[in-house]
Amino acid sequence: MTNGATGKIDFNADIGESFAGYELGLDSEIVKYITSANIATGFHAGDPDWMAKTVALAIDNQVGIGAHPAYPDLAGFGRRNMDLTPDEVHNAVTYQVGALSAFAPGRKLQHVKPHGALYNTAVRDAAVAEAIVSAVKAFDPNLIHVVLAGSQWEEIARAQGVRVARECYADRAVTAEGTLVPRSQPGAVVHDPDEVVARSLKLATEGKVTAVDGTEIDFSADSICLHGDTAGAVELAAAVRSSLESAGVEITPMNKLVAGG
Amino acid sequence: MTNGATGKIDFNADIGESFAGYELGLDSEIVKYITSANIATGFHAGDPDWMAKTVALAIDNQVGIGAHPAYPDLAGFGRRNMDLTPDEVHNAVTYQVGALSAFAPGRKLQHVKPHGALYNTAVRDAAVAEAIVSAVKAFDPNLIHVVLAGSQWEEIARAQGVRVARECYADRAVTAEGTLVPRSQPGAVVHDPDEVVARSLKLATEGKVTAVDGTEIDFSADSICLHGDTAGAVELAAAVRSSLESAGVEITPMNKLVAGG
Amino acid sequence: MTNGATGKIDFNADIGESFAGYELGLDSEIVKYITSANIATGFHAGDPDWMAKTVALAIDNQVGIGAHPAYPDLAGFGRRNMDLTPDEVHNAVTYQVGALSAFAPGRKLQHVKPHGALYNTAVRDAAVAEAIVSAVKAFDPNLIHVVLAGSQWEEIARAQGVRVARECYADRAVTAEGTLVPRSQPGAVVHDPDEVVARSLKLATEGKVTAVDGTEIDFSADSICLHGDTAGAVELAAAVRSSLESAGVEITPMNKLVAGG
Amino acid sequence: MTNGATGKIDFNADIGESFAGYELGLDSEIVKYITSANIATGFHAGDPDWMAKTVALAIDNQVGIGAHPAYPDLAGFGRRNMDLTPDEVHNAVTYQVGALSAFAPGRKLQHVKPHGALYNTAVRDAAVAEAIVSAVKAFDPNLIHVVLAGSQWEEIARAQGVRVARECYADRAVTAEGTLVPRSQPGAVVHDPDEVVARSLKLATEGKVTAVDGTEIDFSADSICLHGDTAGAVELAAAVRSSLESAGVEITPMNKLVAGG
Repeated sequence: MTNGATGKIDFNADIGESFAGYELGLDSEIVKYITSANIATGFHAGDPDWMAKTVALAIDNQVGIGAHPAYPDLAGFGRRNMDLTPDEVHNAVTYQVGALSAFAPGRKLQHVKPHGALYNTAVRDAAVAEAIVSAVKAFDPNLIHVVLAGSQWEEIARAQGVRVARECYADRAVTAEGTLVPRSQPGAVVHDPDEVVARSLKLATEGKVTAVDGTEIDFSADSICLHGDTAGAVELAAAVRSSLESAGVEITPMNKLVAGG
Repeated sequence: MTNGATGKIDFNADIGESFAGYELGLDSEIVKYITSANIATGFHAGDPDWMAKTVALAIDNQVGIGAHPAYPDLAGFGRRNMDLTPDEVHNAVTYQVGALSAFAPGRKLQHVKPHGALYNTAVRDAAVAEAIVSAVKAFDPNLIHVVLAGSQWEEIARAQGVRVARECYADRAVTAEGTLVPRSQPGAVVHDPDEVVARSLKLATEGKVTAVDGTEIDFSADSICLHGDTAGAVELAAAVRSSLESAGVEITPMNKLVAGG
Repeated sequence: MTNGATGKIDFNADIGESFAGYELGLDSEIVKYITSANIATGFHAGDPDWMAKTVALAIDNQVGIGAHPAYPDLAGFGRRNMDLTPDEVHNAVTYQVGALSAFAPGRKLQHVKPHGALYNTAVRDAAVAEAIVSAVKAFDPNLIHVVLAGSQWEEIARAQGVRVARECYADRAVTAEGTLVPRSQPGAVVHDPDEVVARSLKLATEGKVTAVDGTEIDFSADSICLHGDTAGAVELAAAVRSSLESAGVEITPMNKLVAGG
Repeated sequence: MTNGATGKIDFNADIGESFAGYELGLDSEIVKYITSANIATGFHAGDPDWMAKTVALAIDNQVGIGAHPAYPDLAGFGRRNMDLTPDEVHNAVTYQVGALSAFAPGRKLQHVKPHGALYNTAVRDAAVAEAIVSAVKAFDPNLIHVVLAGSQWEEIARAQGVRVARECYADRAVTAEGTLVPRSQPGAVVHDPDEVVARSLKLATEGKVTAVDGTEIDFSADSICLHGDTAGAVELAAAVRSSLESAGVEITPMNKLVAGG
């Protein structure tokens, strides 16, 4: 282990995104490889029955339970931006975090990670980021805020003195400044599984990322986001986990990585 | 004060039943006369913004905060029966109680009272009553269950050893056995405001109700349900409160009337 | 061909039951074997985008386009009974049939078949059956009403003088009186694929069904309901179609089987 | 009458914006003063029961029936922008127009006017405007498209060769170029009832509007939008109508003002 690398990392994934009779994602597979679960809270996906079932699945697999709040857009899976005011965002997050907490033992959650368009808006809109952070803090000052590593949103969360987990995507290209290459640009997404594994490894063991221009930059992260929506995605998650474990990285829930709590 | 009368009673009412731009009920009026508020939780009425606003209103008026969960039927205001399984009821109640709790100081609620069709089903269907009681108990064993006085539901709640508030309706006729006269029968609803006041008074000071056949029966209650949907209803609530206070009855939040807590 | 058998029969199936990002059913497979499609209309499943896509699929496969209206219960896939008044049913059916018609060429539908709990309620509740029939008739007096063969609902539809298609389920047992054996009774559902094929054949070529008590009864039907939710169901549909075609039965859209139009 | 003034004008208003038990607007009052009604179609407001009731109200008052489609945002009353793709807009409009048509005699609508955020997006986003116009045209090539007078959207509709009604707001300030002064600027909304009446009069009789810089510009319109949400708004509508009638303007449904049909 070198540099900013701690030799420890958390893996998070979105689960519980089924709804009513619609089953989505390979939840029971992906939970084997992650340490933190972002569980849908009924606004973009999920419903009370799936939330009960998914929290039980997370517990059975000793995975940290997190809320995955979204815009109220079931018809668009929470992927469409909606012009909510910061107050509306604050209240929508409060509602969803509270709803999920009721299914968790002792009503205790580990973290909150916004979903889809709400996540993206938090990255670029300070008022929305503030609204999310303040809602989570008011709910429980010990809750971890999962934020995009290096974003303005991370600064906003740190300024409020809350617990922050820096998240990165091993399959997303990064600029020399450490920000995500926009999806509209070529090469924004890394499709080669071997490269995703290699990038995860470098990140966890060296605390470095190779930027799109070839330079290696220091980059620390507390959590890597994995996907569990297809068989291929689950295999990739398994490969990432296995390669990191072989390299001596300890896969650890974010609750043990982030100070406080 | 005689008989089963304690000289103390709670007044509860449903508030927070607005939705989006639709404002319903005279919440800021009725809260002046009640001690416990049943706040809508988004399934039949209410939304995150109204919940935030309504909890603040309850706090300002020192009114106990309760959740008012319902069937997922916004289109029918939760008044239409829906054939949910007991498990579905359990999860729906858990979700809604959790959501409301997130808006309350310290996430602490005083009570839970189901809404509309869910309330009526709990009265007549033991499995649904069990599902509601167990959901509330799992959420917080100190939460008060508001139940219809004398119902099978009350027995189910008591059997689970939880805190129970017996509720009655001063404007509903009662049989000699102490059960509600069904709405389908003539005389089921007492329309004369003076009679509603008189019945409330007798209930709180003597612990008695005059049944439809004229006999006076012993009847104790912890809470009387008032309405705040029209100007006339608010006036009646004011009259009931004033007459009881004049008679020396202490209007007290159910939290102080019900053992435990 | 003998008896009440016409040597012609329609096959119908429910399609378009996906929602947003949730894909359900093997629509592009099952449409190859049916002549009439019941397309979800957004209340229990389906949304505007899936409706557009599904109508196009039906047209490509020369399948008659029908509306599949339901109770407003996305969370329960329209399978839970809801206590709507007959007027509410009438308006809900009108809304959904109109919505689907807008996607069909010339706004012309072939038929209407209610979904799930609404279908079951129509079978046993005359007022609901009346409400559905009158809504469809008011929308277009030429539309075919798909009803359960031999039900009170069929009589109600015929009494209103509308076009009626008698539907039967080849995988459901029938009493000696020609009514469905309730699902709560053993043997209500025929699980053996060969038997389903054999029953379909007898129905289409002889106009007879073997009742649960072993007696053969006369039984005519205009349409057999097939399923396309699993690979096994699609295979069964293919087998039924192929065996009937081999026996000389003409598989024909209900529009050509039912008088009027 | 002078200039571009025809001496005839249509008045339109949004009605049917109630939902379930929530009643909104003074529909039965405002319908007395308008000639065209924009009826909510269930996505931002309205439901099947209110649509049935509202269409009947429009018929009783001999008011042209129009659809008022919106984004699927009941929680935000359709006032929040949502990033739907043009295809999603096309299908959402198709669905809603079809649904309302089912309640109209002969399934015949007079016009379509988008609601709230969808209307505003159509004004500034050509792809969304195209999607709306093409959906309405595909539904019925005779339907009138209500567009903001002078907008790019109007040009898009005219280029498709459909019937177009130019709408203006007598209570909104206009620039010397004939576009609306943005709401963010002072003076964007005309609050003085007398001035609203005077502007309506000048528009209908002279075909002119006084821009914010004081210059008088030629401005023709087929329809003036009135409001019926408050008692004051209804009074103003009555005053506008009465002043125009006194000046000899003929208040006429847009169907008689717009060529084609």
